[in-house]
Amino acid sequence: MKKSSDLAVALVSGGMDSLVTAAVACDSHTHVAFLHLNYGQNTERKELEAFHNIADFYHIPHNFRKVIDVTFLKQIGGSSLTDTTIKVKDFKGESSEIPDSYVPFRNTHLCAMAVSWSEVISAKKIYIGAVYEDSSGYPDCRPSYYAALNKLIKEGTKKGDIEVLTPVINLKKKEIVLKAIELKAPLHLSWSCYSNNDMACGICDSCALRLRGFQQAGIPDPLPYKVRPSYP
Amino acid sequence: MKKSSDLAVALVSGGMDSLVTAAVACDSHTHVAFLHLNYGQNTERKELEAFHNIADFYHIPHNFRKVIDVTFLKQIGGSSLTDTTIKVKDFKGESSEIPDSYVPFRNTHLCAMAVSWSEVISAKKIYIGAVYEDSSGYPDCRPSYYAALNKLIKEGTKKGDIEVLTPVINLKKKEIVLKAIELKAPLHLSWSCYSNNDMACGICDSCALRLRGFQQAGIPDPLPYKVRPSYP
Repeated sequence: MKKSSDLAVALVSGGMDSLVTAAVACDSHTHVAFLHLNYGQNTERKELEAFHNIADFYHIPHNFRKVIDVTFLKQIGGSSLTDTTIKVKDFKGESSEIPDSYVPFRNTHLCAMAVSWSEVISAKKIYIGAVYEDSSGYPDCRPSYYAALNKLIKEGTKKGDIEVLTPVINLKKKEIVLKAIELKAPLHLSWSCYSNNDMACGICDSCALRLRGFQQAGIPDPLPYKVRPSYP
Repeated sequence: MKKSSDLAVALVSGGMDSLVTAAVACDSHTHVAFLHLNYGQNTERKELEAFHNIADFYHIPHNFRKVIDVTFLKQIGGSSLTDTTIKVKDFKGESSEIPDSYVPFRNTHLCAMAVSWSEVISAKKIYIGAVYEDSSGYPDCRPSYYAALNKLIKEGTKKGDIEVLTPVINLKKKEIVLKAIELKAPLHLSWSCYSNNDMACGICDSCALRLRGFQQAGIPDPLPYKVRPSYP
């Protein structure tokens, strides 16, 4: 594919979905800027390491990398309801139904950062590794959400010429692994595990989902694991 | 007007537009939560003081007030281009055309905070004091931007039942003053001045715009000023 001679921004968490998304961006544009959001999760140390390792692999200069602290999201999110202790008799908060990891409207915050940065550095495309299949029903992972977001960007930016792209939104984990292989993406540098160890645990939900994807793709995961479950 | 028995969120910067917007919210709902964003401007000390004074006036309990630090916007915004020093030969950054105060897509960040918080505390309406007339052409102050934002909220939240309202978007400063009088809003507690003094300067753009609004409304501004220009 011929690369278009322009600048794109890729949101790179360090996980496999964002790795493949970044690989698509680097395959399609001459210049890509990498954006990483630190929202205070336990695994941030490993994810930031993965972010820089992936950026090194793609020769992204350091002034094309940006790490933004978005720990304020914790303060807003469902998990902080206990701190704010707002009690309104007639209004039932939804905290009990929302998992701790869920931050309402989160992808809008992340994409808004990318849009603001893109406008400053004149990038026209933004790549985000949202996956609808594995989204557990999060509304801000749906294709229709991104269609609405792109309309908002048209209305809310100076030139209205920035677009968010979601190249893996309709892929299953198996297809994401195959796409990584096709694009020679450095799978060994990505980090999916929810535990905060130096070696992936192999048993958390995220490890299990990843390992199953590799297994279904018929490809060995290059990452070392503490425990490597076998799938029937 | 009969108040609807529910909870709304009002974005309150402390300025006159947000004061009147908060007054409309308090006039329309039994419970209102106040949200203030600190994005590191010089006048934050005075604006935060105004925020709490206005919240006290409307008897907003402290657990219904939230102040979020959004100083990361400075890091992204046009004004920080000199720090990131991204230089791409073929791509001209637009920093030279953007005033320092301009943060691209800013209102999306602010509204996203309000939406996230609203989902957590089950508020259904969000009030923001965006004004199209005085927006200096900022794209994220246009009515069409808020229409697109409301579509995004429908797509990107759990129930899709949160709506952003902009009660002063089509008003001129004179009409905002008259609306404040009509609603008995505490104009003496709002803060518009761009200078970081204990008394409003009376000569900065923001003071001039405000004073002209009062003059056109035929009403004296209750705030003391260092200098009070007279308008012909």
